[in-house]
Amino acid sequence: MTTERLDAGAVRASAERADASRSGAAVAGAEEPGAEDRDVPADSLRVLFDPESVAVVGASGNPEKWGYWLASGALAGRHRRTVHLVNRRGGSLDGVPFLPALASLPAAPEHIVVAVPPQHVRPVVAEGLAIGARCFTVITSGGTGAGTGEDAADTERGLASLVTAHGARLLGPNCMGVVDTESELRLSWGDFPSGQVGLVSQSGNLALEIGRLLARAGQGFSRFVSLGNQRDIDAADALDSLIAHDATRVIAAYVEDFRDGRRLARTLAAAHAAGKPVLLLTVGRSEASGRAAASHTGALVSARAVVAAVCRDAGALLLDTAGELADVALCLLAAAPGGARLRRIAVVGDSGGQGALAADALSASGLEVPVLSAATRAAVGAYLPPGAGCGNPVDLAGAGEADIGNYARIARTLLLTGEADATVLTGYFGDYATANPAQAARECDVARELAAAVRESGRALVVHTMARDTPALAVLRQHGVPVYERIEQAATALAATDRLRRTGPQQPATPPPPPSPLPIATAPHRVPDGGYRTVRALLCSYGMVFPAAEFVSTADEAADAAHLIGFPLVLKAMGLAHKTEAGGVALGLADEAALRRAFGRMREATRADHYVVEAMARPPYAVELIAGVRRDPAFGPVAMIGIGGVTAELLADTTLAMAPLTPGRARELLLSLRHAPLLTGWRGAPAVHLDAAAGALCALARAAVEHPELAELEVNPLLVHPGGAVALDAHGVLA
Amino acid sequence: MTTERLDAGAVRASAERADASRSGAAVAGAEEPGAEDRDVPADSLRVLFDPESVAVVGASGNPEKWGYWLASGALAGRHRRTVHLVNRRGGSLDGVPFLPALASLPAAPEHIVVAVPPQHVRPVVAEGLAIGARCFTVITSGGTGAGTGEDAADTERGLASLVTAHGARLLGPNCMGVVDTESELRLSWGDFPSGQVGLVSQSGNLALEIGRLLARAGQGFSRFVSLGNQRDIDAADALDSLIAHDATRVIAAYVEDFRDGRRLARTLAAAHAAGKPVLLLTVGRSEASGRAAASHTGALVSARAVVAAVCRDAGALLLDTAGELADVALCLLAAAPGGARLRRIAVVGDSGGQGALAADALSASGLEVPVLSAATRAAVGAYLPPGAGCGNPVDLAGAGEADIGNYARIARTLLLTGEADATVLTGYFGDYATANPAQAARECDVARELAAAVRESGRALVVHTMARDTPALAVLRQHGVPVYERIEQAATALAATDRLRRTGPQQPATPPPPPSPLPIATAPHRVPDGGYRTVRALLCSYGMVFPAAEFVSTADEAADAAHLIGFPLVLKAMGLAHKTEAGGVALGLADEAALRRAFGRMREATRADHYVVEAMARPPYAVELIAGVRRDPAFGPVAMIGIGGVTAELLADTTLAMAPLTPGRARELLLSLRHAPLLTGWRGAPAVHLDAAAGALCALARAAVEHPELAELEVNPLLVHPGGAVALDAHGVLA
Repeated sequence: MTTERLDAGAVRASAERADASRSGAAVAGAEEPGAEDRDVPADSLRVLFDPESVAVVGASGNPEKWGYWLASGALAGRHRRTVHLVNRRGGSLDGVPFLPALASLPAAPEHIVVAVPPQHVRPVVAEGLAIGARCFTVITSGGTGAGTGEDAADTERGLASLVTAHGARLLGPNCMGVVDTESELRLSWGDFPSGQVGLVSQSGNLALEIGRLLARAGQGFSRFVSLGNQRDIDAADALDSLIAHDATRVIAAYVEDFRDGRRLARTLAAAHAAGKPVLLLTVGRSEASGRAAASHTGALVSARAVVAAVCRDAGALLLDTAGELADVALCLLAAAPGGARLRRIAVVGDSGGQGALAADALSASGLEVPVLSAATRAAVGAYLPPGAGCGNPVDLAGAGEADIGNYARIARTLLLTGEADATVLTGYFGDYATANPAQAARECDVARELAAAVRESGRALVVHTMARDTPALAVLRQHGVPVYERIEQAATALAATDRLRRTGPQQPATPPPPPSPLPIATAPHRVPDGGYRTVRALLCSYGMVFPAAEFVSTADEAADAAHLIGFPLVLKAMGLAHKTEAGGVALGLADEAALRRAFGRMREATRADHYVVEAMARPPYAVELIAGVRRDPAFGPVAMIGIGGVTAELLADTTLAMAPLTPGRARELLLSLRHAPLLTGWRGAPAVHLDAAAGALCALARAAVEHPELAELEVNPLLVHPGGAVALDAHGVLA
Repeated sequence: MTTERLDAGAVRASAERADASRSGAAVAGAEEPGAEDRDVPADSLRVLFDPESVAVVGASGNPEKWGYWLASGALAGRHRRTVHLVNRRGGSLDGVPFLPALASLPAAPEHIVVAVPPQHVRPVVAEGLAIGARCFTVITSGGTGAGTGEDAADTERGLASLVTAHGARLLGPNCMGVVDTESELRLSWGDFPSGQVGLVSQSGNLALEIGRLLARAGQGFSRFVSLGNQRDIDAADALDSLIAHDATRVIAAYVEDFRDGRRLARTLAAAHAAGKPVLLLTVGRSEASGRAAASHTGALVSARAVVAAVCRDAGALLLDTAGELADVALCLLAAAPGGARLRRIAVVGDSGGQGALAADALSASGLEVPVLSAATRAAVGAYLPPGAGCGNPVDLAGAGEADIGNYARIARTLLLTGEADATVLTGYFGDYATANPAQAARECDVARELAAAVRESGRALVVHTMARDTPALAVLRQHGVPVYERIEQAATALAATDRLRRTGPQQPATPPPPPSPLPIATAPHRVPDGGYRTVRALLCSYGMVFPAAEFVSTADEAADAAHLIGFPLVLKAMGLAHKTEAGGVALGLADEAALRRAFGRMREATRADHYVVEAMARPPYAVELIAGVRRDPAFGPVAMIGIGGVTAELLADTTLAMAPLTPGRARELLLSLRHAPLLTGWRGAPAVHLDAAAGALCALARAAVEHPELAELEVNPLLVHPGGAVALDAHGVLA
């Protein structure tokens, strides 16, 4: 066995590259050992995070090699556990000699980290299993020895099967390793600062970036798990472990492919229920990033809108950038536990301009900057020069320069009133000692007073300052007061924290059971096509209401049908993609003569073989909705509901949720639309029948769930009126 | 005379406080000496920025006092100009003795900076004028000696009159001073780094914050003007001076009250025409910040939407925070001159995750991340390991670690292709030397190669990195390559730069002359009320089309009118605020009997004395617009146009522009609406008569311009159809 001849940077990059080269993961998930829906107990990963003994195979004394960082990281924890270093060519690090092979070890290490060339990975793992190791972290990329692409994936799956068949666990291959700052396990490259954020990441570079941002703000990681190719331990496993981990107070995750999305959704909801906020980053917002994911991973990237809906319903926060994630984590860690909202913000600025810009930024983020009561204005005003604004924002107007202690007095007053959920200090605090070193001690004292006021009040204080890395700011950070360089960061973080606290899980993340049986519900059967007649019959069987209709082929049949249904009527040609444009729709046919004329013209124009004669829906007030279900590769059937009609595209007012739906959830979705006021009695119009609309959505969602042969199912328009909801057209797409 | 017994911090705060205490500025502008529409030649401020001699009155040797900072700042430029220090109690600084009074000076200083207690300000200024000084910068706040509030404002106006009557200029009072880093004039407190951004600010703290942010990014100020109470030199004067100042390449401004808004708009447009982008911050986006401005300044804060529209039309950028301003300034300074767009962005990431998140952030900001051509992919791919993504984003996938030089090779390839307007590097670059000091020199070399590729290509490179303040980043910054800590900052800056380059001045900032005379145009007369009859007559006289109508009081008169106009008709009661709700509108009256019945019911319901009988507009296809003009205290009449109808509030699809309008501009406004597709032939509907709609808007805007007695004027709805545009209701509000 030889150590890899790569420098540390190159190995880092190699882990990065292969992070992104999982193949066929999303669809092939079910075949992989790690993707089974095990919901394993969290302490099954104890051997990953806090093993009693560790061996590093591929240890090195050369700081340019991965083996050096893994070995020195492992040694840093040797007062906690036995550490063995293995390199068949010998050598030593920090006085610890390298043993020639795992077989030379006096006892089996619980956790073996493997950083050897690809062709040696499987033999090393087999050797480790033979001596009784329980966990393997495989850094090595490159298919562990056998070719590339699907061959490599097969080899990796074989490795995982070997490990799990022995009841052991595998992290990777092709990962950056694992860090647990509490158990002092550091089996990774790079500097991961200690803190209270648990991170699960499919990108090593992003983990390094988040670590830097947290460290600059005085925070860091409780645990870091680099997922690599997820051949055994996957994102949900790692998240489960963080939920159960006391030292982890906020969970961060970067996930590119979601595999079993419903299991992940349950995990997110479980984290929320356990009081551990999950901050999720993913890619795929843009066409370009989708290209990147496809070209790198071959995995199907779940559409971001679906992920956003899943997060909303599971009480997780989907964020956009590493910076946003760090900012929000900081605020969550500082905000009072217990889930109180952070909606109303008091602002204290030491200049009118900064206070006003802060108020603007907070308001633009959806927060409130409420007028303070006369009593509070008076209490605050006692510390201010005459004429200083104290309605909110409060303008210190020199009171801070007159006595830095006024920062603490005023912040304490505001924190204790309860008129605001949080207080934002914006401007200069933290920089007094820079201009006047004589003030250094006093400024740090005031920082401690601010922290004390936070503890006393149980409310949150957030500081934005033009200073950077000064002693007073260090004091604030030590006491858990978040400090931001930019007011927009504070606003984003507060708003996101409030959003998380406002939106608990709105439905159990385990999809609810199907709604109670509908009138004509039938046992699922496989639909043969996605045409209107078939889909209409299917949806009718789930209880959706359509106008009375007869399917006909001739004018005489149409006339007969008309007398069954009654005028006025609609005549539509079947089997056309764009029937309106093709002359395949005639509305408002008032009598038989009109029907026959329309039939003749339509047959002439469309040459269709089949037609439908339908009663014409004419509610006096109605709103057109569009509803559909799309089968997402990771999350399964996802229901979409939106405002329909001719301007639907311009309005773009839609929302998503995993199917099936309960009637209550369907109502919530309807009422969450921007145009929901149209449904509830807009400017004198009657309210529409929301329960009927919700019932129709439930029927559609349930039909889709029970008919996986349909990739898509759509009703457009769904006409909702005060008396009910009626579907006027529908179609499906076979998978 | 005594020096102020305040420490530097307290004086800073005092300047701040009074920055925000301008009183009655917006409305009273015309009465103030500085608010006259002088459009003075820019070099009239030469004595402010580059005087041949300076005197500091109130100089101090105590670093806790303003007088110390002003004096030491002035002395720093003594190789450029004569510097005199004055303090009636004597003393010295840096070997320069303080003279007892201005009268003791051997010759008149051109520029005198005044930092003495309020009661001494006027005597010092009078003394300075007597010996022939040309410019005064008055730091002192507090009404220069006489009371507070309006008294103080009067005293300040008196001071300004005294100064300008002598042909001299006044900056302040109550300002933080003036800095010109090119002429080495530093008459201010605080550290203002040198650079290419000219800043005009009504807040000193915000200027310090922007300075810090720019300094951290390797930039700074060419000039800084603290406006203070603007009793002579105001924002537009200061901006004019920056337009003419070669060393200023980007102009930044924080303005709370706009005074003569139209003059400011002309100044912004002049800056744009001169190739000097203006980045504007203001307050008033939220209710809370409006409160702050009102409580602090008594000035009427212009509604932000108006400022946004003015900026859009003048080619200036309205931004939200100091951080955003610094980020955009940096990008503007780096972007190739000549105004080319920065729409298409190539992304190079050294991890797939960071590249994809960057692509997402750029796309979310409205930029494009286009697929690269096969030739470019091949050229880039030559430096990459097999399988690395190179379609855009380009994934270095370890190529950077294999050889840092690949960063420069790949960036150069992308910059030279021209397939993207700018290239974004995201991830790790700048940090190689941190982990491996042996790479320090090489990393700096590559930074120079990157800068060389920028010069060679003439295109922009923007770097996002997890590193901070490393030597390689310093090299990039020295060469003008902007470096951001967060990818969202890079995205915001690029998108804002592109927006600025896309939107040139859309109309001359000088409001255009009225449109050519309309058919029945009459000489302006003062309208007596804002009722429909009056406003309809007014608007008809400007050429707006209304349906045929007769104003009546009895059923018989209504019946007579009906036979003049023809059925179907509309009957409306006059003089009601909410006539629909009050039963004061009857539509579609088909014959005299229906009209008489409606009249009876309406008189019963409303007890109105007057009614109008109107022809009923029944175009087969029409779009309802809402149009109005609001008189803004700073910017005068501002036209609003939007989509009307029953869902107008939900759509919130409106736009603003200063009145009057040209027909071309009115068309542009209509076509800028989100729902503009409804006007131009949406899904088979006919296009409406855009010229008629534009003509109606011009008529409305011109009527408002020529009738200042109307504070508001509104037409709602304005029905636009393929054959024309017809106003169905209108009203005004007297000022």
